[in-house]
Amino acid sequence: MTDLRFCLFGAGEMATIHAMNLISDARVKIAYVVDPSAERAAALALATGAQVVDTDTAFADPTIDAYVIASPPRTHADYLDRAAQTRAYVFCEKPIDHDMGRIQACMAALKGREGFVQLGFNRRFDAQFVALKQAITAGRIGSVEQVLIISRDAEAPPVEGFIQSSGLLKETAVHDFDLIRWLLEDEVAEVYVMADALINPEYLTVGQIDTTTTAIRMAKGTHVTVLNSLRAAYGYDQRIEVLGTLGQASVGNVPESLVILSTVDGIRGEKPLHNYHQRYAQAYRTEILAFAETVATGGMVTPDATDGLRASAIAEAAILSMTTKAPVAL
Amino acid sequence: MTDLRFCLFGAGEMATIHAMNLISDARVKIAYVVDPSAERAAALALATGAQVVDTDTAFADPTIDAYVIASPPRTHADYLDRAAQTRAYVFCEKPIDHDMGRIQACMAALKGREGFVQLGFNRRFDAQFVALKQAITAGRIGSVEQVLIISRDAEAPPVEGFIQSSGLLKETAVHDFDLIRWLLEDEVAEVYVMADALINPEYLTVGQIDTTTTAIRMAKGTHVTVLNSLRAAYGYDQRIEVLGTLGQASVGNVPESLVILSTVDGIRGEKPLHNYHQRYAQAYRTEILAFAETVATGGMVTPDATDGLRASAIAEAAILSMTTKAPVAL
Amino acid sequence: MTDLRFCLFGAGEMATIHAMNLISDARVKIAYVVDPSAERAAALALATGAQVVDTDTAFADPTIDAYVIASPPRTHADYLDRAAQTRAYVFCEKPIDHDMGRIQACMAALKGREGFVQLGFNRRFDAQFVALKQAITAGRIGSVEQVLIISRDAEAPPVEGFIQSSGLLKETAVHDFDLIRWLLEDEVAEVYVMADALINPEYLTVGQIDTTTTAIRMAKGTHVTVLNSLRAAYGYDQRIEVLGTLGQASVGNVPESLVILSTVDGIRGEKPLHNYHQRYAQAYRTEILAFAETVATGGMVTPDATDGLRASAIAEAAILSMTTKAPVAL
Amino acid sequence: MTDLRFCLFGAGEMATIHAMNLISDARVKIAYVVDPSAERAAALALATGAQVVDTDTAFADPTIDAYVIASPPRTHADYLDRAAQTRAYVFCEKPIDHDMGRIQACMAALKGREGFVQLGFNRRFDAQFVALKQAITAGRIGSVEQVLIISRDAEAPPVEGFIQSSGLLKETAVHDFDLIRWLLEDEVAEVYVMADALINPEYLTVGQIDTTTTAIRMAKGTHVTVLNSLRAAYGYDQRIEVLGTLGQASVGNVPESLVILSTVDGIRGEKPLHNYHQRYAQAYRTEILAFAETVATGGMVTPDATDGLRASAIAEAAILSMTTKAPVAL
Repeated sequence: MTDLRFCLFGAGEMATIHAMNLISDARVKIAYVVDPSAERAAALALATGAQVVDTDTAFADPTIDAYVIASPPRTHADYLDRAAQTRAYVFCEKPIDHDMGRIQACMAALKGREGFVQLGFNRRFDAQFVALKQAITAGRIGSVEQVLIISRDAEAPPVEGFIQSSGLLKETAVHDFDLIRWLLEDEVAEVYVMADALINPEYLTVGQIDTTTTAIRMAKGTHVTVLNSLRAAYGYDQRIEVLGTLGQASVGNVPESLVILSTVDGIRGEKPLHNYHQRYAQAYRTEILAFAETVATGGMVTPDATDGLRASAIAEAAILSMTTKAPVAL
Repeated sequence: MTDLRFCLFGAGEMATIHAMNLISDARVKIAYVVDPSAERAAALALATGAQVVDTDTAFADPTIDAYVIASPPRTHADYLDRAAQTRAYVFCEKPIDHDMGRIQACMAALKGREGFVQLGFNRRFDAQFVALKQAITAGRIGSVEQVLIISRDAEAPPVEGFIQSSGLLKETAVHDFDLIRWLLEDEVAEVYVMADALINPEYLTVGQIDTTTTAIRMAKGTHVTVLNSLRAAYGYDQRIEVLGTLGQASVGNVPESLVILSTVDGIRGEKPLHNYHQRYAQAYRTEILAFAETVATGGMVTPDATDGLRASAIAEAAILSMTTKAPVAL
Repeated sequence: MTDLRFCLFGAGEMATIHAMNLISDARVKIAYVVDPSAERAAALALATGAQVVDTDTAFADPTIDAYVIASPPRTHADYLDRAAQTRAYVFCEKPIDHDMGRIQACMAALKGREGFVQLGFNRRFDAQFVALKQAITAGRIGSVEQVLIISRDAEAPPVEGFIQSSGLLKETAVHDFDLIRWLLEDEVAEVYVMADALINPEYLTVGQIDTTTTAIRMAKGTHVTVLNSLRAAYGYDQRIEVLGTLGQASVGNVPESLVILSTVDGIRGEKPLHNYHQRYAQAYRTEILAFAETVATGGMVTPDATDGLRASAIAEAAILSMTTKAPVAL
Repeated sequence: MTDLRFCLFGAGEMATIHAMNLISDARVKIAYVVDPSAERAAALALATGAQVVDTDTAFADPTIDAYVIASPPRTHADYLDRAAQTRAYVFCEKPIDHDMGRIQACMAALKGREGFVQLGFNRRFDAQFVALKQAITAGRIGSVEQVLIISRDAEAPPVEGFIQSSGLLKETAVHDFDLIRWLLEDEVAEVYVMADALINPEYLTVGQIDTTTTAIRMAKGTHVTVLNSLRAAYGYDQRIEVLGTLGQASVGNVPESLVILSTVDGIRGEKPLHNYHQRYAQAYRTEILAFAETVATGGMVTPDATDGLRASAIAEAAILSMTTKAPVAL
């Protein structure tokens, strides 16, 4: 049994999810945890049998097979730059960075190693979306003409909690932008965004919006609509519909349970799973275990750094469209 | 355009439904209305352009093409006996009578004319059930093995309103007994009934029950379960499932509208249409217009008097099973 | 019983639907049919008990209570101009005209009588959409934020059959533009259209497109997306979703029947009703009977000529957006 | 961290499922595997780090905390008898035995320790059924009146593979009999079974049937219907409906994915998960981890040996009803 030595940057929520999923693979040994909070690092190290080290130690050890970057977004690019100097695989939470210039600098550093850096687009590993893509790839709906993605959070954050955010388009819609590239195996040619603060107009005071309607034309001509919102009272709303020449394939929400209550108030089904933790728990697991498998067996990862670049470029164009109130070509 | 002269016995709710549907067929002329209540008869005659007459006059007129018997059940057999002496078609609400002996006497009087007497089993004309039967007949599910019929009223009557009733099995389940004969094109071989007053134990004081579970074995071996109840809080529950060698065909309830409300309380659809008036409005119309068409063009009606006899015989066996607490063969 | 004298322009498919629905109202007398095809006019006159007359005779008769204009679109404005000179009610199929200048001239002629001219936006009378609007109006979903309308034909016409058409936006999407004004009780502020010929690129040779994605911002800020297409293999696709502060209200397609077939091939429900005749049969009936009721009782119609103008103005802006590839303000 | 020492009887499919689930609990150490097949035992011992021993060694070791009996049914009672002499917890696959006399002898041996023997009624641990029970217990549907359980295998076994089976009622329906006791917190008062070989009449040659319709009256009066069948072309059919005074709670099948394909052939959803491995994978895991938790923390297990006795007694009565063609009281 190969022993795969992993180093984890970050010891917060996302890092913990990845760590716990990783250790269920008997081949994986989490060697190091790196985090500015000594307390948090120690806790995760204890839970995983890892050692707390500093960044330099982490990158100096040539026996590390894989770096997992699950620290805050602003730290991703720096870690990637250093990881680029090693021969190790990298798993990096999206985005590479919030700034396109910084992303491009990072891509330059990674040149030739893009295929060894897996980006954290977890939805590609969701069983429902995988089944949807299989239906499309198998030709069940013919050539794709019109796509709809609905992606809404259940609960909008308070204004103060939103100040540091890179916003709805870069934080949330970027997942949808990656999804359509993957689902359609095509690139975005043009994007138009209509954006407003309809849920909470105060978001505008911190430069944020909460509701977007995005119209995309793909290189092959396919129309894509992405509806994003920071709030859906009924829960985390994650749906996709794909119309093709032979019909439509769609995936609806995953309910909390299948119990149906029929009463004087109507026929009531359960709400969708409430947040990304619940909805994508299994996708996170499949994603990181697929990464571990690639580390074990060799070859290229997917989605890779270039996919990260492309999704960020679409988000960047979307923001430009929002600002200029005009469609933006990519 | 043929002029079809109809005579209507009864001027209550059911008679009015039939009359209003009939006059939408331009060939139909409602000539006579017969009802012990002069006031009610006059109202329906006014609405339909008919004349109020007595029973003797009604049966003495050789120009009448069709008698429609929509008066109370206890009057059906007498009217049928007299109609049997004419050459006219007859539409008779179910049942022929609540007493099997009386039904058999009536069948004797009708001998040779059974196929000219249509019984009011409206559900055979429901578009959903017709589509279900077509799927079965077309072989979509292969040979039928196990059938489930759920038939529940929305609201249970008060005890006093239930004294005169012939009961859940003869009033309600008799429709289901007819449905399975029609759907499966097979006869009932054996019936077992479990019956209780679970909704309102006071029903027992007037000899009534409100909840029945009926297990039937058909002549060809098919298992049928009929679940009846006098109350379903969510409305009139009318469903059928048919399992065959190749799969299952089923029909669920028809909702009041297709509006789905997704809120913090769940994903809520509308309740089923609330009662037989609403659920079967179109079936009543199709049923009586099919009768009028047969009157116009000749030939035999369906379901006919023999179907009425058979359904009542099953109900009779069901009651015997309930009483003897044992399966009853037919 | 009031006798309402109607005059019908047109004797084609739509005129026949209106005529047949109208004569089920016992108060309505179809006095005249006007159509350039003598044969077609005679047939409809025979079926309705009407007299075939020419346009001048039709407009010269002061006893006419209502004109119903169900002739080809290019004739609507001329008939409206002449009807404007009478005291009669008018029902006019949409659109008033395909040219905005002509529509405005017509509106000038109708000045003061706009509320007596009902426009044929039948979907406002569909029971599903009425129930949806009731849910919104009753406050079930709070303030509306984001709306989705999907409106797709089942089968795309041949290129030659599309030459004379005013196109997907003016013919089909105009219904959706009216629907959102009615549903949201708000006006369109801005429209952006992405339009292509994805189903059949040859449509471009006759200046037509077949797939549109339309993003609309309403005056109150609400986002609306309208997805139109000339073909959906599974049938006529007519759906609406409305997201509000308290949740979402939606209406899906009406299936041909409720039969569900569960086989080795999956769990299969019936396709949606296949075209507007089937899907909106009852809405056409409710629409024209509502018009007859207004004619009988007095008062203003709805939707009226101004609604026709507004919907056409949105379609005009949509076409401008398509051409200029930029959002267009109204 | 407590170290819990487990001994496993059996090394087949079910034993392997339990073993793999158990070792994901870090407290559990599988000390011994006992199986007549040395090869099979060795394989499972290797996978779990256990030692292969014989029965006497297994029962002689006083450090064993729990015995898991997942060997063939005919061996259960003997192992239970011996385990009854120890102080260890026991997990035993259902049934205790196929013979009621043997079950009762075993219960006598277990006297006073019934609550330390967990029976393998995995469905009690299924998330859907747990949610259903919670809805009932929370009073969402009021007092229960009428229950329906549908439980059908996807594929019927060949006749030869069915010779040794204890049959549809003791193998399959026994799960449903346990479910209703648990769901309703009530005992069965009376059972009536209609049983036939409709799928494959040759089953009769080995004393087996393949289709049963079971009507049960509970002690509190509730009606229960259980529909069992050895074949459903669309897959493993596992549904429950519970009607109460305030409405109905139901759980349908779990589909393979949520993908909906809308094509010219209809609106198609995925089939249910195909067999008990797939459908109840998580329930098996939850069940055995709940057992491990009880072993770790002390207290009584549930469902226990008495539940095993009761479910078998219902199955026994069901078989008597099938044979005598009459309802059987318990």
